[in-house]
Amino acid sequence: MISRVHIMLGSPEMDKLRLDLRPGDKVVGVDKGALMLLDEGVSVDLAIGDFDSVSEAEYEKITREAREYRRFEAEKDDTDAELAIEWAEKRYKPDKLFVYNWSGGRMDHLLNLLFLVHQPRFEDIIQKIEFKHSQNNVTFYKAGSYHLDRQKNMKYLAFVGMTALKGLSTTGVKYPVDRLDTAYPVTLISNEFTQEYSRFSFSEGVLAVIQSSG
Amino acid sequence: MISRVHIMLGSPEMDKLRLDLRPGDKVVGVDKGALMLLDEGVSVDLAIGDFDSVSEAEYEKITREAREYRRFEAEKDDTDAELAIEWAEKRYKPDKLFVYNWSGGRMDHLLNLLFLVHQPRFEDIIQKIEFKHSQNNVTFYKAGSYHLDRQKNMKYLAFVGMTALKGLSTTGVKYPVDRLDTAYPVTLISNEFTQEYSRFSFSEGVLAVIQSSG
Repeated sequence: MISRVHIMLGSPEMDKLRLDLRPGDKVVGVDKGALMLLDEGVSVDLAIGDFDSVSEAEYEKITREAREYRRFEAEKDDTDAELAIEWAEKRYKPDKLFVYNWSGGRMDHLLNLLFLVHQPRFEDIIQKIEFKHSQNNVTFYKAGSYHLDRQKNMKYLAFVGMTALKGLSTTGVKYPVDRLDTAYPVTLISNEFTQEYSRFSFSEGVLAVIQSSG
Repeated sequence: MISRVHIMLGSPEMDKLRLDLRPGDKVVGVDKGALMLLDEGVSVDLAIGDFDSVSEAEYEKITREAREYRRFEAEKDDTDAELAIEWAEKRYKPDKLFVYNWSGGRMDHLLNLLFLVHQPRFEDIIQKIEFKHSQNNVTFYKAGSYHLDRQKNMKYLAFVGMTALKGLSTTGVKYPVDRLDTAYPVTLISNEFTQEYSRFSFSEGVLAVIQSSG
């Protein structure tokens, strides 16, 4: 069975997307994200962050109701999201790390999250990470060959180089490319599936794949 | 006098930020963005896009009321935003290019915009571009030394490497750095001004500076 961790960040506005929880899944709440989960009646396995976005009473509730909690200094080198992803990986060694509530707030936080793929310490886990949102779903790939399923409710597909890429080929899409080399991060956006899946491959670089509902 | 162009993109939700128009400024409306401007009573100098997000009647209104319009095929290689920025530059040769309504919708469009800095054809103009939003303001810099004013209503400051950077030094901020070299795009986020301006410099790479209201 695939082991999965769901990480709810504490962005100002909660996306309407619901966690698709299965038995055995772990749930991590980050800062205000922990509170949002508890308020929704979701059990929190680990609450983590500096908790400077919640009141003292809210923090009490989190420590009382979460199975485990870790509080860090506000003036740390890492963001709450970086700490949460590192801890989730260390604690649960999951096959998949779903991250929610990652967009819609501060742009520096958003870029910090998307640019995790550049940090050597996350290199081994970037393919596990999936940023989920009702309108946008983002996954990351290192060089290799892949099968990608079309997600329901999603209309557009984008292949976004987070780095220069070598030998990118895509099939099953409206605008395929064949052994494309790029000298810088290129955004191949507004593509669409022509069947229920796409196959793609590349030999160098880091690729983001984004499915969007339009 | 500084010549300025305001580009309103056609993102699904209009940010509450109002254009700060001065006499002589030019206004470019992109696709549905042109309609939003006209509906707000703003004169549109140039309407541009494939206009596949507006109805036939709305398109008629745009062609009737905009001073000039350019319609492109929907299946072009460039995004509407790329075309708008290229045309605005070619047509008006402005000192500043303000872009509005660039976030909050599709993540592939957002990355396409932020990654314009990597495209050789935009290399000469990236320092003119400013992505404006009530919560997030983004500007870009090539190697050099700069004075950066604190913007009112903004609380946080981030220095985000869009590439590896060499010799980044920052002053006037809570967490300064001194001749920092990075091997990959590093996001130095959640910084704050300690005075009314910051000075920063670096010798290689492309840097994004983000001011956020929190």
